[in-house]
Amino acid sequence: MSIGSESTTSELLAEFRAGSKRACARLLSIVEDEPEAAASVLDELYPLMGRAFRIGITGPPGAGKSTLVEKIGRECRNRGRTVGIVAVDPTSPFSGGALLGDRVRMPTLFTDPGVFIRSMATRGGVGGLAARTKEVCDVLDAYGRDCIIIETVGVGQVELDIAGAAHSTVVTLVPESGDAIQTMKAGLMEIGDLFCVNKSDREGADRMVMEIETMVEMKVRTPSSEFRTPAIDDWVPPVVKTVATTGLGVPALLDQLEQHRKHLETSGVLTERRRESVRAEIIELTEEWLRRDVWRRPDVSDRLAGLTQQVLDGGTTPYRAAEAILRDVLAAN
Amino acid sequence: MSIGSESTTSELLAEFRAGSKRACARLLSIVEDEPEAAASVLDELYPLMGRAFRIGITGPPGAGKSTLVEKIGRECRNRGRTVGIVAVDPTSPFSGGALLGDRVRMPTLFTDPGVFIRSMATRGGVGGLAARTKEVCDVLDAYGRDCIIIETVGVGQVELDIAGAAHSTVVTLVPESGDAIQTMKAGLMEIGDLFCVNKSDREGADRMVMEIETMVEMKVRTPSSEFRTPAIDDWVPPVVKTVATTGLGVPALLDQLEQHRKHLETSGVLTERRRESVRAEIIELTEEWLRRDVWRRPDVSDRLAGLTQQVLDGGTTPYRAAEAILRDVLAAN
Repeated sequence: MSIGSESTTSELLAEFRAGSKRACARLLSIVEDEPEAAASVLDELYPLMGRAFRIGITGPPGAGKSTLVEKIGRECRNRGRTVGIVAVDPTSPFSGGALLGDRVRMPTLFTDPGVFIRSMATRGGVGGLAARTKEVCDVLDAYGRDCIIIETVGVGQVELDIAGAAHSTVVTLVPESGDAIQTMKAGLMEIGDLFCVNKSDREGADRMVMEIETMVEMKVRTPSSEFRTPAIDDWVPPVVKTVATTGLGVPALLDQLEQHRKHLETSGVLTERRRESVRAEIIELTEEWLRRDVWRRPDVSDRLAGLTQQVLDGGTTPYRAAEAILRDVLAAN
Repeated sequence: MSIGSESTTSELLAEFRAGSKRACARLLSIVEDEPEAAASVLDELYPLMGRAFRIGITGPPGAGKSTLVEKIGRECRNRGRTVGIVAVDPTSPFSGGALLGDRVRMPTLFTDPGVFIRSMATRGGVGGLAARTKEVCDVLDAYGRDCIIIETVGVGQVELDIAGAAHSTVVTLVPESGDAIQTMKAGLMEIGDLFCVNKSDREGADRMVMEIETMVEMKVRTPSSEFRTPAIDDWVPPVVKTVATTGLGVPALLDQLEQHRKHLETSGVLTERRRESVRAEIIELTEEWLRRDVWRRPDVSDRLAGLTQQVLDGGTTPYRAAEAILRDVLAAN
């Protein structure tokens, strides 16, 4: 593993630092597609990271997430912030996955130089792409975006990964989303720092708000989830009503997001999360490179072939073979 | 990592070798629940493995897999073979997941000393348990079972894992299962060494058989899947009609399974698959233990804490930190 080969990307990095959108897009592609070069780029950009506020928008299909993302993006712009949008949902218009009409309806975002839109969903399955979501946010963070809005479809593990990448996760529901118990079952209750009942001009919105509030109260009283540091995190997720199509409630939602950010900062949760996230990142990178480096060594691949044959000949077992390789590759303690 | 601590299990192993069902059940629990002790047990049993014929039975819910497993088990017994049954499907009566009536309806299996039934589905999610399916089969193999029948519900990755653990995979469908194209889409076409149209006394059975045969023919003509060695594997998966409830067609199905086994042996596919599987097992064990051993080292965990702090202080990056740990733990090439 070498992270010193920056020669090919140094010009790109200089352009990136100067604010070039083209360079940013190119670096994002490297981060998504070229793991080795990605390490070098991300290492280089690391000192620029840590300033952006990362907002996750999740919820079931049909909850109006894309429209909400658009309106939150606009509201951020109104407040003078630059915006990055990362779409992990393949059906999102931000991913080009919806009718062209949707893109046409939100031209102010698509043409605003203060908005950078990146779709992670156009090149393959959601699962794999989600793995790079954090790194994509890291690049946009280094690019100087004040707010990064991550839009993701509500599906299991992906959601958890993204909740891990965001500072604040907004769970978006609609009055028709079904009862709050279903929501909790789907794991959405666990990850919501804020709840948004969108399309709240429809029937059942107030009941939905009440149900969520009840669930939130139950949750606050029960032991921690892995996303919280219980001793210091006394945040009670608020429930906000919006009508994303008209923008109703969106400023209030952003106000609550700002409140949550302040809470994260003053309570020490942010520091704690950051420590956890750095630690997890070091562990993950080490394990990834460990695997790669071990099998890439010619002595180890020879040894693997030889030991495989020995097992087939009855001279050893896979267990002893693995032990032997471990002894070879690990330095003495 | 130590695989030399067999003292606690040595009595158990002696009982196991003497044929004790109790000892077999206990060792299976160790293999499922205690990774460290499992390595020692499996290493010890390794020389006893490699004799059993491992049959995977998969297909969509409602295809009658459990009844088919029961009848195949009986037919094996009729032919003088001992049987092991491994149920990965939580809804299987073998897992206790169905009506007690189902278990009562197949008493000859549940009370036959020549049949050992193990459910892997009663203790948690299917995904995690499936990971240990191969090892459970290994133990039953060492126990001297002639045939091991693995019953699994048809769901994505689990299926692939189990197809990897079985010598012959029977994909079970019913006339109502929908068209063959759907089956192929679900990945079942890829893993079937044999196809069984169960409940074939129902309408549409012959059409189903024809559709599958057409798909099989298309598949034989197209490039390999990861489960085959194309150059030497010219097996054309047969389609067998059964009515599992009456036992109709089950002897023919077992005949075809025996044919497939012979084919695997004479064509060299078995040898090739065995080499691949040993190699994969060594790699998997090495990676698992590598991860474990690295983070367990006190010097490394101190280093991780120190480097995490350095990253937080802006003195380094997660990328350089991971590199530093790699340098510490990997022996010089």
